[in-house]
Amino acid sequence: MTQFINSKENIVTEAVDGVVAISGGRLARLDGYPHIRVVVRKDWGKSKVALVSGGGSGHEPAHAGFVGEGMLTAAVCGDVFASPSVDAVLAGILAVTGPSGCLLIVKNYTGDRLNFGLAAERARAFGLNVEMVVVDDDIALPDLPQARGVAGTLFVHKIAGALAEVGADLSTVTAAANKVISGTRSIGMSLDTCTVPGSPKEDRIPAGMAELGLGIHGEAGVEQVAFSGARDAVTAMVEKLSTNLDEKKHIALVNNLGSASVLEMAVIVYELIHSSIGDKISHVIGPAAMMTSLDMKGVSISLYPADAQEIELLANVTPLSAWPGIATIQPVSKVALSDGLAPIAPLASEHEPTNQFLTGCCNVLIAAEADLNALDARSGDGDTGSTLAGAARALIGAMERLPLADHAQLCRAIGLELSQTMGGSSGVLLAIFFAAAGDGASSGLPMHKALKAGLDRMQEIGGAQIGDRTMVDALDNGFADAAVAARKGADHTATIVRAKVGRASYLSSQQLEGHNDPGAEAVARQFEHLAN
Amino acid sequence: MTQFINSKENIVTEAVDGVVAISGGRLARLDGYPHIRVVVRKDWGKSKVALVSGGGSGHEPAHAGFVGEGMLTAAVCGDVFASPSVDAVLAGILAVTGPSGCLLIVKNYTGDRLNFGLAAERARAFGLNVEMVVVDDDIALPDLPQARGVAGTLFVHKIAGALAEVGADLSTVTAAANKVISGTRSIGMSLDTCTVPGSPKEDRIPAGMAELGLGIHGEAGVEQVAFSGARDAVTAMVEKLSTNLDEKKHIALVNNLGSASVLEMAVIVYELIHSSIGDKISHVIGPAAMMTSLDMKGVSISLYPADAQEIELLANVTPLSAWPGIATIQPVSKVALSDGLAPIAPLASEHEPTNQFLTGCCNVLIAAEADLNALDARSGDGDTGSTLAGAARALIGAMERLPLADHAQLCRAIGLELSQTMGGSSGVLLAIFFAAAGDGASSGLPMHKALKAGLDRMQEIGGAQIGDRTMVDALDNGFADAAVAARKGADHTATIVRAKVGRASYLSSQQLEGHNDPGAEAVARQFEHLAN
Repeated sequence: MTQFINSKENIVTEAVDGVVAISGGRLARLDGYPHIRVVVRKDWGKSKVALVSGGGSGHEPAHAGFVGEGMLTAAVCGDVFASPSVDAVLAGILAVTGPSGCLLIVKNYTGDRLNFGLAAERARAFGLNVEMVVVDDDIALPDLPQARGVAGTLFVHKIAGALAEVGADLSTVTAAANKVISGTRSIGMSLDTCTVPGSPKEDRIPAGMAELGLGIHGEAGVEQVAFSGARDAVTAMVEKLSTNLDEKKHIALVNNLGSASVLEMAVIVYELIHSSIGDKISHVIGPAAMMTSLDMKGVSISLYPADAQEIELLANVTPLSAWPGIATIQPVSKVALSDGLAPIAPLASEHEPTNQFLTGCCNVLIAAEADLNALDARSGDGDTGSTLAGAARALIGAMERLPLADHAQLCRAIGLELSQTMGGSSGVLLAIFFAAAGDGASSGLPMHKALKAGLDRMQEIGGAQIGDRTMVDALDNGFADAAVAARKGADHTATIVRAKVGRASYLSSQQLEGHNDPGAEAVARQFEHLAN
Repeated sequence: MTQFINSKENIVTEAVDGVVAISGGRLARLDGYPHIRVVVRKDWGKSKVALVSGGGSGHEPAHAGFVGEGMLTAAVCGDVFASPSVDAVLAGILAVTGPSGCLLIVKNYTGDRLNFGLAAERARAFGLNVEMVVVDDDIALPDLPQARGVAGTLFVHKIAGALAEVGADLSTVTAAANKVISGTRSIGMSLDTCTVPGSPKEDRIPAGMAELGLGIHGEAGVEQVAFSGARDAVTAMVEKLSTNLDEKKHIALVNNLGSASVLEMAVIVYELIHSSIGDKISHVIGPAAMMTSLDMKGVSISLYPADAQEIELLANVTPLSAWPGIATIQPVSKVALSDGLAPIAPLASEHEPTNQFLTGCCNVLIAAEADLNALDARSGDGDTGSTLAGAARALIGAMERLPLADHAQLCRAIGLELSQTMGGSSGVLLAIFFAAAGDGASSGLPMHKALKAGLDRMQEIGGAQIGDRTMVDALDNGFADAAVAARKGADHTATIVRAKVGRASYLSSQQLEGHNDPGAEAVARQFEHLAN
């Protein structure tokens, strides 16, 4: 069992009940389980032309997901990849068809044609006005007179559905559907087969290959082609689609056959827009999973040269979340980066005591390099000392461009320097500490309170609390009681056997006990230096 | 290469350009490629509170798919599963933040916290009013103080987004976001790992097992559990979710982590509604791919006890197709099957000549059983003769309940009998033929024209044209010139070396040449019988 189902037998009834239950009261189903699984609009007055579609399950959200205002009136759901029975289709027709009649929208597979066709005959025997259109948009097999019906069916659902919703009569809706069918072309490509419930997954497509020209029932594609990325994949599909493509502008419906990621689908769209037929495409529907083949890792592209009225019908609002809407393609609009993006360069100033103070602090870190590396090797990759010493050396090198005479600006400048020269989380955290301290100082706080504000912000963003075995332990104590307390905080970290944040939180107590946290040790040494 | 991408390096820039190009002009991006990949609302006047989110890519449609009216103002996109740089986040903040300020919505991963946090500090140094909230909805590791941020982030995006859209100020939006964060809990389960671009797929989850308690960056789940179907999967997730769950009604956000099929997601919803916490869930958002982990075959469920105002904010209309909307859970509404579903039983009547005529026709088919089977064995499974003979025997047995005196009703009744007793496509096609002939007769056509109408309908639905090597060839000729012509039509099928519809269309000319089509042969024998 590699799927989120319970049993092959119940999959469709459970899924249909799931869809109906969370439709917010928009949908109902016919009371004909287990064999008759028909989803119908609950808000349906039978005054307009009814649209009934369906077929085998496994193509969700088609078709139940498209039942609602402005699209289908009913969906008849067969077993996975198997046509529903004549009785089920007839039940659907009888449930929704009023005096305006009913249009059946059928994908061109023998079982669906026959079962929907016979159901239509039976319905006509009851005096109902029923028409049927057969969608055959697949161009994978150009010589086959009976082309399959695939994702292009969505064009029919939406255009005929919107037309019926605004009150068109059955012959108008049928003619519109047939016009769409005659102009729609689709092609699919997949990198893997789908997983049919209850059957082992077929291992048909070798690594490095893709299948081009797929149906939506797991049948093999027309050809296997070498796969070398999204661009070539789209090129291969576009080559099929562009045969005899007229000069009109087309709508492209980009369909996820199941398990291509949303990220990949966006790349497919990018390539389609930039393909040789990109300038013939004015609008895109999707990318979205509309007519799937269970979890097939593939895509299909359908094209239809809609006229202005049809574009309007495609754009008409429907409450169905499965319908992704239609949007124009436009050149990518680029917004210039803000001038403020480059950090404000502080005005350098000299201040000898500050220079000496900072240099002294830096030298403490440089001198502690080996010790801190050794401590870090207990719980990490042993580079805390080198990271801090490197940043300290860089800060000494930057001394002459720092605003040494303005301590608020100096804090911000140190933060900026550290964020640029010091890798890892510690560099960012110290940058946040100094930036927030600078904010505090520039808003008038005395320096010790500004530094405490920096600590608070660092804790807030880094998520470390006192006692979490980080440099915060030493910093916090340091502000309270200076060197002695900072040392106490640092040494205390050796007794904290469970780090709660940072990399050490992934380690066991045995690995931590008896060793100071290297960050806390660095802080303690700074305060001890300052006390002397 | 097993993904629809071109290169690991370009995947995010191409995907972002794809999303922006088909946004219908709603979106733009910052002009900072390749390192700064920020999607922004194009229709943004900076008068309201800006909402900026983002993080590593690979979670699409999060976050670029949620940029738009009523949700995010900007999305900052890192490399796949890697936090965007401080500069990229800052560029996003600077691009959209006006006098009303900006809220950063960050998922609780160290890189995101730090980079968004430092960017916020830098933005504040420019005088901007920036707040940051950190989403930590994952309950997989209840003892970890730093819970991860996963799909529950969508509750924050929507509620804070809708609030900002209606003009709430920054502190109100921030407080609302923090309220949502404190009340949201999420858990995920997956049947397979995701495919990270540029890396081989990790084969971590053995067959028959699932991982419970997943992050969204491909990291292993907290535990591997035996997998035995959708019900047990939901039960395991619900067990985690129900710990300390209060009695309030909750909103469930059902998220596809990537490649669970739409059909499976509907079954998951069905199970959730019927689970032990089903009665505590009032609304569902999804199921949909909202916060994915590339193509991970998994789901996550998030719960939040929204109050009335928050439900309204969740329901506020947004033009974003990636947002699936929210719907109430309601008992499944069932519509009774139409009374007309059972076929209208014809009123039996006697008519000796018709009885003899029909019986004679049936006997022809019974006598031809072996010959037709032999012909069918050339191109099929050799059962055409048995199928037709069986139907003929059944029809003889049904003679006394047929309306023999009313030929229009008789045609319909024969169609009904055949559809019930004769398997395969031929049974349905003949049922359609007789039903349509009955329709024609009852509308006043003379019988030969009614039968021609039946043939036309059968061709329309079955898709067979004259010359396609089917029983249509003999039937059509039969109507024109009776027995001789029907025979001619049938014999002609032996020269048609390429069948275009039906099962024989899958065969080569060598397999067909010189042998009559069995259906056509059966029809010819009928007409020959009638001529004698």
